[in-house]
Amino acid sequence: MRAVDLIRKKRDAGEHSREEINFLISGYTREEIPDYQMSAWLMATWIRGLSRPEIAALTEAMLHSGEVVTFPELPGKKVDKHSTGGVGDKTSLILAPIVAAGGLSVPMISGRGLGHTGGTLDKLEAIPGFNTALTLADFRRVLKECGMALIGQTAEIAPADKKVYALRDVTSTVENVGLICASIMSKKLAEGIDALVLDVKTGSGAFMQKEEDSLRLAELMVETAQRMGKKAVALITDMDQPLGRFAGHSHEVMESLEVLKGRGAADLRDLSIELSAWMFYLGERTKSVEEGRVLAQKLVASGEALGKFRQGIALQGGDARVVEDYSRLPQAKNCVEVKSSANGFLAVTNCMEFGVALAMLGGGREKKEDKIDPGVGLEFHKRIGDRVTAGDALVTIYYNSDAKLAEAKQLIAGAFSIATQPPPAKKLIRRIIGA
Amino acid sequence: MRAVDLIRKKRDAGEHSREEINFLISGYTREEIPDYQMSAWLMATWIRGLSRPEIAALTEAMLHSGEVVTFPELPGKKVDKHSTGGVGDKTSLILAPIVAAGGLSVPMISGRGLGHTGGTLDKLEAIPGFNTALTLADFRRVLKECGMALIGQTAEIAPADKKVYALRDVTSTVENVGLICASIMSKKLAEGIDALVLDVKTGSGAFMQKEEDSLRLAELMVETAQRMGKKAVALITDMDQPLGRFAGHSHEVMESLEVLKGRGAADLRDLSIELSAWMFYLGERTKSVEEGRVLAQKLVASGEALGKFRQGIALQGGDARVVEDYSRLPQAKNCVEVKSSANGFLAVTNCMEFGVALAMLGGGREKKEDKIDPGVGLEFHKRIGDRVTAGDALVTIYYNSDAKLAEAKQLIAGAFSIATQPPPAKKLIRRIIGA
Repeated sequence: MRAVDLIRKKRDAGEHSREEINFLISGYTREEIPDYQMSAWLMATWIRGLSRPEIAALTEAMLHSGEVVTFPELPGKKVDKHSTGGVGDKTSLILAPIVAAGGLSVPMISGRGLGHTGGTLDKLEAIPGFNTALTLADFRRVLKECGMALIGQTAEIAPADKKVYALRDVTSTVENVGLICASIMSKKLAEGIDALVLDVKTGSGAFMQKEEDSLRLAELMVETAQRMGKKAVALITDMDQPLGRFAGHSHEVMESLEVLKGRGAADLRDLSIELSAWMFYLGERTKSVEEGRVLAQKLVASGEALGKFRQGIALQGGDARVVEDYSRLPQAKNCVEVKSSANGFLAVTNCMEFGVALAMLGGGREKKEDKIDPGVGLEFHKRIGDRVTAGDALVTIYYNSDAKLAEAKQLIAGAFSIATQPPPAKKLIRRIIGA
Repeated sequence: MRAVDLIRKKRDAGEHSREEINFLISGYTREEIPDYQMSAWLMATWIRGLSRPEIAALTEAMLHSGEVVTFPELPGKKVDKHSTGGVGDKTSLILAPIVAAGGLSVPMISGRGLGHTGGTLDKLEAIPGFNTALTLADFRRVLKECGMALIGQTAEIAPADKKVYALRDVTSTVENVGLICASIMSKKLAEGIDALVLDVKTGSGAFMQKEEDSLRLAELMVETAQRMGKKAVALITDMDQPLGRFAGHSHEVMESLEVLKGRGAADLRDLSIELSAWMFYLGERTKSVEEGRVLAQKLVASGEALGKFRQGIALQGGDARVVEDYSRLPQAKNCVEVKSSANGFLAVTNCMEFGVALAMLGGGREKKEDKIDPGVGLEFHKRIGDRVTAGDALVTIYYNSDAKLAEAKQLIAGAFSIATQPPPAKKLIRRIIGA
């Protein structure tokens, strides 16, 4: 078998056998196939697409490129959630403590933010001392002790995906449902979980802006997980506007703590409870999603979920006093408001622009090597459908450096459309796939 | 400007500006753009295609990546011919001496064979001592002295094309008319010629097997040359069967000498005269193609063209005695015939298979680093339309090693189709573009 012939086959819209996919991925991981051949194959694949069997084969080849973790020492079911990412999406910080408090194990391997999206690891690191770079041994220890542990991808887990993803990032071959599915699922299936809940974002702040693309990705991921013997469900959820009231690292930790205290924004609270409920159900902790919903609400109301988060923070080296004292989180020095210049109803937001503006102000990464300023944040005062009067604050910007402030303000102001009539209401949870 | 954005643009079927093409080619030549980004762009380009302005911009960017030779010391017009390659295509060895004998200059920069096609340089090197690696200074000297010089691509000429071509070869991005046009024309336009005759092969032994693809490539090349102020014409010629009676390096030198002596196969003689006639006409040596044809025939009949070839061989260090004594060329030790197993008419040949079989026996290259055995050759006894009786010799194989002889014989035998009725006759010269 030769890489050049496999590139030609995909270029001509052919379908690869499992052996051909294994040859490409194992050859690339062992550095026998050079970057320039893999990138030509990736571009051909981006344009021509992958069939379902090809996606399954690619997922498995990347999964088996490294270690597949198992947790024989844990008695209960292991469950996880993965989100395709958006603006203000902080549900991991809320549902991991809820589900761990409910008695399941949550071995969560998360990513970092890039471009307009935030990353769970970056948010957790806003908590002074919080260590997301645990060894596999410490990951097991924390998980056993408190039922949840949140770390970053290690060198041992799916190294092929790490190498392929780095190449996709610099060759414009990221946004393809087959490649995305294989990338996500190869990592998630290496975690030793029994069940996975997927939160597939759709709308102007998501990677997949069209609902049909989100739907296709959701179906592919659920099918891939089920094919490999895992329970899985995907919720297609709204990302036409930020989730919750805040975006930015310290702000998102605070807002997550607020939800765990029974307060916080309704959309964030509802989605966190819903995702937890599905995790309880798929993890066989409850007999139905409805029972899972009731359990999740109870664990928040009783303070058990908040206690679990406090324990988790401490076990990963973080300052658990942030739970009661938000001033221990990094704070921005200045703030300024972006105001509405029109009367009417908030009709649409170009949600991605909020993420871009946040990154521009230092609250996100434009390049992988950028450092994040966790104190920088955005507070959203209006939701789609809200009545707006000229002069109303739409967004409060919390910032430290005003180097790109004017540009960021302009971007944010331009992301709002005000109409004379309220837009038709859209559901937060659009569809559920695989239930 | 960033390479990753230009890759995305082409991936999404966008059209590049001249500045964007220049950025890509100059960045790649200076090694600021890595191979893996260029190969992703090449694959996107292969699939999405290039517009005419993009092809022109790419040609010029590659042309200006190196030296553009000029010959102010030569009084007359400089003309050249380029063939897209096939099996048994040896016209350069015939028309260069004819045209030089007619008083024009032929500064010919040629390539080597790869895959199923032969290369002019390799054929010339079958002549003991013939040096195709002249310095630019020696190239000028030989050209001034005898009106023709045949060398390989130097490091100074179109280095971007050399680098891009090497990458295309290993990433399955070769067969695309836009990329082929830019590659050929960037080298040819760097030679300092006034006019160019293109021989675009079509059929089962050509890179472009379909006539419509050959036509498109021909139109693009002629247009590109004319846009840059060069006279150009393209002949679309038959490659459904080998050109002439022989393929293989020593054999092709012998057959070329035969034509220069007024003998040889009719198709090879006719095409060589026709291409020479166009070179005379475009080089303003004659007032019409018809006059050019008469002049070419006269120069062969008088022996002047043969004398010119003898002079050229000697000036490039070759043993000019081969002109009279073919035994001075490397000869294969053994021969065997491939016979017809059926009665009827030769209907079709899968001409590419002959080239592949020849390479397999050592008379061509499968990989760039392979050494060629110049004595190995194939002699074709039948042409399409000929009556064939079972037991008739179709091909004589001249070989040294019998390592792959059985496989080569099988390939050759399988390349012939015998039918009960003769096929409709096809013209050797199918169309003329740009006249």
